[in-house]
Amino acid sequence: MSETAKTTPSRPRKVRDVKRWDLETDVAIVGFGGAGGCAAIEAADAGSSVTIFEVASASGGSTAMSSAEIYMGGNGGTRVQRACGFEDNTEDMVTYMMMAAGPQADEAKIRNYCENSRDHFQWLVDIGVPFKDSFHKERAIMCLTDDGLLYTGSEKAYPFAQHAKPCPRGHNLYIEGDNGGPLFMKIVTENVEKRDAITVEYETRALTLIVNEDDEVVGLVVRKDQQELNVRARQGVILCAGGFVMNEEMVRKYAPMLTRGNTPIGNPGDTGTGIMMGMSVGAAAINMHEGFITVPYYPPASMTRGIVINDQGQRFINEDVYHGRLGAFILQQQSERFYFVLTVEQYGDYERVSYMGAEVAGTGETVEELEQELGLRDGTLQHTLKVYNEDCVRGEDTQCHKAAEWLEPLQPPLVALDITPGRGTFLPFFTLGGLDTLPTGEVVNPERDVIPGLYAAGRTACGVVRRAEGYSSGMSVGDATFSGRMAGRQVAGRKRS
Amino acid sequence: MSETAKTTPSRPRKVRDVKRWDLETDVAIVGFGGAGGCAAIEAADAGSSVTIFEVASASGGSTAMSSAEIYMGGNGGTRVQRACGFEDNTEDMVTYMMMAAGPQADEAKIRNYCENSRDHFQWLVDIGVPFKDSFHKERAIMCLTDDGLLYTGSEKAYPFAQHAKPCPRGHNLYIEGDNGGPLFMKIVTENVEKRDAITVEYETRALTLIVNEDDEVVGLVVRKDQQELNVRARQGVILCAGGFVMNEEMVRKYAPMLTRGNTPIGNPGDTGTGIMMGMSVGAAAINMHEGFITVPYYPPASMTRGIVINDQGQRFINEDVYHGRLGAFILQQQSERFYFVLTVEQYGDYERVSYMGAEVAGTGETVEELEQELGLRDGTLQHTLKVYNEDCVRGEDTQCHKAAEWLEPLQPPLVALDITPGRGTFLPFFTLGGLDTLPTGEVVNPERDVIPGLYAAGRTACGVVRRAEGYSSGMSVGDATFSGRMAGRQVAGRKRS
Repeated sequence: MSETAKTTPSRPRKVRDVKRWDLETDVAIVGFGGAGGCAAIEAADAGSSVTIFEVASASGGSTAMSSAEIYMGGNGGTRVQRACGFEDNTEDMVTYMMMAAGPQADEAKIRNYCENSRDHFQWLVDIGVPFKDSFHKERAIMCLTDDGLLYTGSEKAYPFAQHAKPCPRGHNLYIEGDNGGPLFMKIVTENVEKRDAITVEYETRALTLIVNEDDEVVGLVVRKDQQELNVRARQGVILCAGGFVMNEEMVRKYAPMLTRGNTPIGNPGDTGTGIMMGMSVGAAAINMHEGFITVPYYPPASMTRGIVINDQGQRFINEDVYHGRLGAFILQQQSERFYFVLTVEQYGDYERVSYMGAEVAGTGETVEELEQELGLRDGTLQHTLKVYNEDCVRGEDTQCHKAAEWLEPLQPPLVALDITPGRGTFLPFFTLGGLDTLPTGEVVNPERDVIPGLYAAGRTACGVVRRAEGYSSGMSVGDATFSGRMAGRQVAGRKRS
Repeated sequence: MSETAKTTPSRPRKVRDVKRWDLETDVAIVGFGGAGGCAAIEAADAGSSVTIFEVASASGGSTAMSSAEIYMGGNGGTRVQRACGFEDNTEDMVTYMMMAAGPQADEAKIRNYCENSRDHFQWLVDIGVPFKDSFHKERAIMCLTDDGLLYTGSEKAYPFAQHAKPCPRGHNLYIEGDNGGPLFMKIVTENVEKRDAITVEYETRALTLIVNEDDEVVGLVVRKDQQELNVRARQGVILCAGGFVMNEEMVRKYAPMLTRGNTPIGNPGDTGTGIMMGMSVGAAAINMHEGFITVPYYPPASMTRGIVINDQGQRFINEDVYHGRLGAFILQQQSERFYFVLTVEQYGDYERVSYMGAEVAGTGETVEELEQELGLRDGTLQHTLKVYNEDCVRGEDTQCHKAAEWLEPLQPPLVALDITPGRGTFLPFFTLGGLDTLPTGEVVNPERDVIPGLYAAGRTACGVVRRAEGYSSGMSVGDATFSGRMAGRQVAGRKRS
């Protein structure tokens, strides 16, 4: 086979088929986003020579495209948390993240993350990432001010708040507008560039891993200037090549739920090749079915005072959860339509601020009128609103447990937005599955034996974030940068082959 | 590594480490359940020598533990379907199975199954499997009479009936009681035993695959009488080793939803080793998150006239669906309790016939009284029942689309059964993920390139059945026996190495 086979991530190259090493390095890193950049810095600072291979012509990855909120806390709180008056207990953070991840939670990984998250904050500050000691009070998906801290998840919402003391953990870079990602990657890139031990090869595509006779990963095949190069990695290879959201076939096969979204979030390189390279040498790819898929119904925060209903006119989720949790529960209902019901006053805010793109499905001077316009069975929306409005007056949402601060009777005139997946509303999505790794970044097989020489971080690995139901903004860049550092440090401690 | 490594399914043995071949055969089959047995018969009939390795001391696998209903139809109908007055169109069967499998459907595999399903029926008859030409009218999970045909899925229920003409496709063996599985495997085993070309090695555990330098699968390591034996398979290895429902760690990692069940359905050998062996040579394991998890609320069929509610007192699913679909939707709600609400008269049937094991959570001479006993918010169950009962009178379930034949107003006195997962109700589950294969049974890698010499069938492969939401009884044994035959035929056509 070997003589005719094309070079593909699903089939590693054997060292016996390597005629010469075109490049040698201690550590080879695939991908120069948040994970790859942080991995490189750590590995270099621990004494290794590092080469990063990036398919694009510049650093960035999906981190640069993101808001670069970073989920951090615990150990009493980061500098920003404490300055803003929040004391953050590590156990509360662990509880929240365990609930968020669900039954597939990796407790060792979550504990390691929470216990070292405050140090991670300090490491980021040390490499020059600026955070302002100020709290952004308004509910937002991304912070458009330069405030340093905000709630970015479901910490204050049912059922999380009932189990873990809420604390804001979304750290936002000290810059106005949605510009955190580019700034963050600029800082990381400058740090990489000033380290002599790190070389970056841009416009270079990683094709497949190279394994020796004992199935250890000893290098990487890359393509640069239309030539295949064999790269020897004396200490190991770190895959930081992103997820697979841009690979339609893979999404359909592994994460079918996501096929209902309409806007993949990621960079063009998120084609799953890093994950496939791992699988080709026996690594376990886990949590591949999970993804983030969302109906981003706020801002404006006032939308939280509206209600979401299905085609039976029923509520089914507390609307003060993180938007990704709401998206996940919408996809799990048997219902052909979903509506966001709000007052005309709230609709004014929506038109001005929202980017959700949902169309008006009906309006009503009375509830009955709206019910009819939406084609709901008579009496159903009336019942839902009667119960809801009574509950608002009493200050307790007996049905879905939305927090009291958001309870305000919905009085006609009312508007209903159509948020049905597939009917035009913005429905962004990305993947949450990847290679199983130890907290050190070492890639493991299905029996959790380490595959020597192979490491993964960021979205190529399956990190602390496991479900749309429990996602919080900042967990992806938090996990990418932290897991990148863990892998970089670990590989640098490995004996050179 | 090789000199110290233990033999484990996650690491294939290299042919260079094989000192001698202890056994040689054309085709090596791992597992003697429905898939393995049918694969062996086909391969032998096509001229190959076959050795089956079975870890237990007898044939059977999970097929023998099942009711052995077999999902078949299309091409105008099987003999039994036609004798019972049903004409079954292949396209209706394809549409139903595609909807059942959802976005992750493998259309090529489903088409191949449906187009050849009537021939499969004939093949089974030819090897001696008896089916009576009679229709079992009563709604049942398994047929306790000797009738040959019954509805075993959601064919007549929303949303399936709206897209594909309903037809019963569950074929039941000609035997009284829930005894189809043992009879089926007795017949298959007799067919295996009378073929000289087939050898069966019982009490023999498959440990790992053997690969040559080109990564072709050329054999298998097995353990028998406390000795490791190297088995050379000249044409290939077929993995028919079941799923992974008995491997708790694997279930948690790959199919976290199933951790909410309480009774794994399978045989003790369902530990995922077949799937791991495939993964170890670069095969794609797909659909690993999916499983069947169910609240088996019928029989008695009269339960279908009851309603299922959540802790908001809401219905959320038509109760005439297959029980596995109801189970799937229960697990997808944000609700801390689930109840089955029925009349006292229906409860009488339940006590007499059901094996669901749900406890009474409340009773009421009036709806208000039951509402209070269940701790539901006042007015909620009243609303649900008012709407439901009115709809029953009108003959149309406007809310959940239960078919008219099941609509009968629920009049107090009422009983509510607690069917909350984790509170005692019988909640059986099994896995639906496995190795990706072509319709031929050839195992493929993530890019769908064939892994030479490796085949899979039954639950070790990911077959036509993909979701609890769309499961129908008979799809597992149907898929196991059919996919076994496909793989057996394919491997027998391969050049001997």
